[in-house]
Amino acid sequence: METRVILINCPDQKGIVARVTGCLFQRGLNIVSNWEFVEAETTRFFMRTEVEGALGETDLVTELRGLLPAGSTVRLAANRKKRIVILATRESHCLGDLLIRCRFNEMNAVVQGVISNHAVLGSLVESFGHPFHHLSHENKSREEHEADVVRVLEPYAADYLVLAKYMRVLSADFVERFPHRIINIHHSFLPAFIGANPYQQAHDRGVKIIGATAHFVTAALDDGPIIAQDVVPVGHQHGPKQLARAGHNVEKIVLARALNLVLDDRVFVSGNKTVIFD
Amino acid sequence: METRVILINCPDQKGIVARVTGCLFQRGLNIVSNWEFVEAETTRFFMRTEVEGALGETDLVTELRGLLPAGSTVRLAANRKKRIVILATRESHCLGDLLIRCRFNEMNAVVQGVISNHAVLGSLVESFGHPFHHLSHENKSREEHEADVVRVLEPYAADYLVLAKYMRVLSADFVERFPHRIINIHHSFLPAFIGANPYQQAHDRGVKIIGATAHFVTAALDDGPIIAQDVVPVGHQHGPKQLARAGHNVEKIVLARALNLVLDDRVFVSGNKTVIFD
Amino acid sequence: METRVILINCPDQKGIVARVTGCLFQRGLNIVSNWEFVEAETTRFFMRTEVEGALGETDLVTELRGLLPAGSTVRLAANRKKRIVILATRESHCLGDLLIRCRFNEMNAVVQGVISNHAVLGSLVESFGHPFHHLSHENKSREEHEADVVRVLEPYAADYLVLAKYMRVLSADFVERFPHRIINIHHSFLPAFIGANPYQQAHDRGVKIIGATAHFVTAALDDGPIIAQDVVPVGHQHGPKQLARAGHNVEKIVLARALNLVLDDRVFVSGNKTVIFD
Amino acid sequence: METRVILINCPDQKGIVARVTGCLFQRGLNIVSNWEFVEAETTRFFMRTEVEGALGETDLVTELRGLLPAGSTVRLAANRKKRIVILATRESHCLGDLLIRCRFNEMNAVVQGVISNHAVLGSLVESFGHPFHHLSHENKSREEHEADVVRVLEPYAADYLVLAKYMRVLSADFVERFPHRIINIHHSFLPAFIGANPYQQAHDRGVKIIGATAHFVTAALDDGPIIAQDVVPVGHQHGPKQLARAGHNVEKIVLARALNLVLDDRVFVSGNKTVIFD
Repeated sequence: METRVILINCPDQKGIVARVTGCLFQRGLNIVSNWEFVEAETTRFFMRTEVEGALGETDLVTELRGLLPAGSTVRLAANRKKRIVILATRESHCLGDLLIRCRFNEMNAVVQGVISNHAVLGSLVESFGHPFHHLSHENKSREEHEADVVRVLEPYAADYLVLAKYMRVLSADFVERFPHRIINIHHSFLPAFIGANPYQQAHDRGVKIIGATAHFVTAALDDGPIIAQDVVPVGHQHGPKQLARAGHNVEKIVLARALNLVLDDRVFVSGNKTVIFD
Repeated sequence: METRVILINCPDQKGIVARVTGCLFQRGLNIVSNWEFVEAETTRFFMRTEVEGALGETDLVTELRGLLPAGSTVRLAANRKKRIVILATRESHCLGDLLIRCRFNEMNAVVQGVISNHAVLGSLVESFGHPFHHLSHENKSREEHEADVVRVLEPYAADYLVLAKYMRVLSADFVERFPHRIINIHHSFLPAFIGANPYQQAHDRGVKIIGATAHFVTAALDDGPIIAQDVVPVGHQHGPKQLARAGHNVEKIVLARALNLVLDDRVFVSGNKTVIFD
Repeated sequence: METRVILINCPDQKGIVARVTGCLFQRGLNIVSNWEFVEAETTRFFMRTEVEGALGETDLVTELRGLLPAGSTVRLAANRKKRIVILATRESHCLGDLLIRCRFNEMNAVVQGVISNHAVLGSLVESFGHPFHHLSHENKSREEHEADVVRVLEPYAADYLVLAKYMRVLSADFVERFPHRIINIHHSFLPAFIGANPYQQAHDRGVKIIGATAHFVTAALDDGPIIAQDVVPVGHQHGPKQLARAGHNVEKIVLARALNLVLDDRVFVSGNKTVIFD
Repeated sequence: METRVILINCPDQKGIVARVTGCLFQRGLNIVSNWEFVEAETTRFFMRTEVEGALGETDLVTELRGLLPAGSTVRLAANRKKRIVILATRESHCLGDLLIRCRFNEMNAVVQGVISNHAVLGSLVESFGHPFHHLSHENKSREEHEADVVRVLEPYAADYLVLAKYMRVLSADFVERFPHRIINIHHSFLPAFIGANPYQQAHDRGVKIIGATAHFVTAALDDGPIIAQDVVPVGHQHGPKQLARAGHNVEKIVLARALNLVLDDRVFVSGNKTVIFD
């Protein structure tokens, strides 16, 4: 039987769950799993409900909106694979991992195309049968380069952009086009080692653990809502190059984990944080 | 404002959430957090709801039971610290950890007393101001020894018994007196290394990770519902003694984590498994 | 300057380190890193030395052997990428991960070819430019099928065979051809869940952690020396299919980690265990 | 047989290992384990050797120093338990953990006494039979308060001072009295969340992992050489108070792990980093 996911985000109020689940019951839907959470600081209410059954003829989302206070968001998750475009630069480990996962249906996404400011990953991408767009940033302003990217992106109508070690900082203008729809992997355990060369920074500081952070991209560098993080132990014997090698493993796993959460409609954004039902 | 936890476990049916939350709404209760889960194999429905507000004059549990199908369990968690009795043998690390946590209010429990089949931990327990009962098993049958334990236990009216490295196997008769109310820490990543001397077994097998498992005790040895598990990396340089030392850290953390889940009313038992809302 | 790795495994004796390092000094070699370990149970001595400098004209290995007791093994690690052949069945995650790593020089190995008893992975392998050998086991005895595999393997002169989710049990005869040169990834935290369907077994037991184990293959199923293990937390909400998805991540990371240790000449085998200098 | 640990830290040079191990051999000592490492940036050589046998009549350390270049440090680790003094403020979890470990011989240390700027932990410490010194900082300058601490410390002749959640910043003068002999536990994954209230900072940033860092104390706040770090996963549902509770577990385990490394003579300091042989 068909399973659908409903996502509600609204100001907290007594009786919301009763109203929503009453509506679902009247439509004959069975609740398979359900999470609710009230964020104390914002008094926002978050709900993710997985229902089984036919949704019915009248529009469920409209009906639910009518039951909720002003300032509510109701979303019925699409029951199709999400469309993603991947942006990369030179490094292969995250991109390659996503290509393999999508090709063998281990991820709820279809790769529409890959954009890179370097040419080196082109033959890999093409061997997977995806379009590869080499958009060099050389001799271009940030605005010009981003305009090139937007021009390529538009026809794809992507649900999400994935920055798989894309080493260019995006402008606020660009980011605003895709609110909470750009996912980045940062090669440190944020907020430690913000900015460039985190593995060199980690080596200089002599840390015993390195990490990776997947987050939504916002206008503030390395400061968007965090979706997933993980770490790996290291030691004095590891130079910056070996830290990077160890870090690559954790980067690709964290990016894939975060992306799976997003693609499976498990992530809400609240201010600069995420609420994740998993 | 008072916060209370309601735990429901019943056969799955459409409309349960609507009925339960409708009832809570009519009493003026606000839902602060809520989890629901339907176990596919058993089609049992599990729900943990945290509400804010005065419960009202008529009995909430009775009313909720009336709304649910036959075979339902409804429990309103007590809003007081749970009463625990700890059983130990000779090792101090788990017992000591629990004594410190309870003394400084880091655990939702009050230690009623400690029972041991050896005398060595007595002065530690007494320095914390708890009764210590040395009940030697020497020259006694299992039945006789357990009868001694039960005699000491009874006046304490404990909510839970905690086996903090209690090295005696309990009889089915004993276990049945405290269904899903005895929590044990097993010094391996179950189901690996069932039985005696898991650290020696782990060393002989050359594993690169050792673990610990906290579980409810059932009549079948080392086979009860698992509440929490964790692991720690080890290497060839660690002999059985060092594996044990590394293991002690993970044992006490896993036992405390499992106990916190139980004491905070986050754990359901379903057959030989647990459903945990955390 | 050239760096070389020397591996010594011999009965323990006073003065071994002095003799070996004296010899290295007289050849003008500088020791960059050095590990020694005496295994208590076997009184075997293990040493891994990384030296910098020209090895000299006379044979270093022969000279070192002359300095050591009977029953010693001395090995000078090859200073070239290792040659590997990968065996797979139907699953793509471990194979795909190795192909990406080797293609982009993130692993000290060159893929010679891939052998599978199914056809499904052929186009992936060929898109990476490697030979793919589909050797079906249907209508063949184990001996006949393995003879086919050996016939394909031989010309490759592989240093190591990597079982990247190869779902066939290998005969003792086959294994003996490649002593400590076959690396397998087992989809559980061995010795838990030996044998078939470990994710179903894990789900039935209700574990809170699942794992993966990379080990050398010996004649005894799932019982060879363990090289690397890791785990990932899971919950009641994960069915066998989701456990498998979570497990795939840990499988490919553990296999790559183990393989890197082997390819970088950091692993000794001692009986049924490994000694790893990392 | 007696086992002793020798620690050497010197400028790198060809032949050092040969000279040192030749000397040990001539004294009839057997090397049980041995680690060497050359730090690339500093070209310092570090060696930790565990030998078995009688050290001999003439002084081993003097002889070894004679074999090594200028600027060398040779240390023969004491074969007795180390003397520690613990400084704490109000929190019990790290202090309690250390008291239990030392009482039951799970740590290679003898607690000489405990100093606190608050009175609340006094009865716990005294129930373990250790002196407790309540040295209030109220109405005192930092210098006056530290002078009080030094006066109490001096007669104890402690090998190490352990800051078990001691919430006062130490002056450079104080720190210089105990170079690389003060170990602190910081309640974050440094260098993230330096300074006060790291759990509030972590909550505000919405991290999915929190950590703890044990380090030697230097004059620069939160910037000394890191000995051990670990982390624990958290989620949106955890407020600052629950983050602190989760953090307490990792704090006490990381502090104990770091302290065990130091007490077992496994840690070298090199500039602002540590070299750890374990």
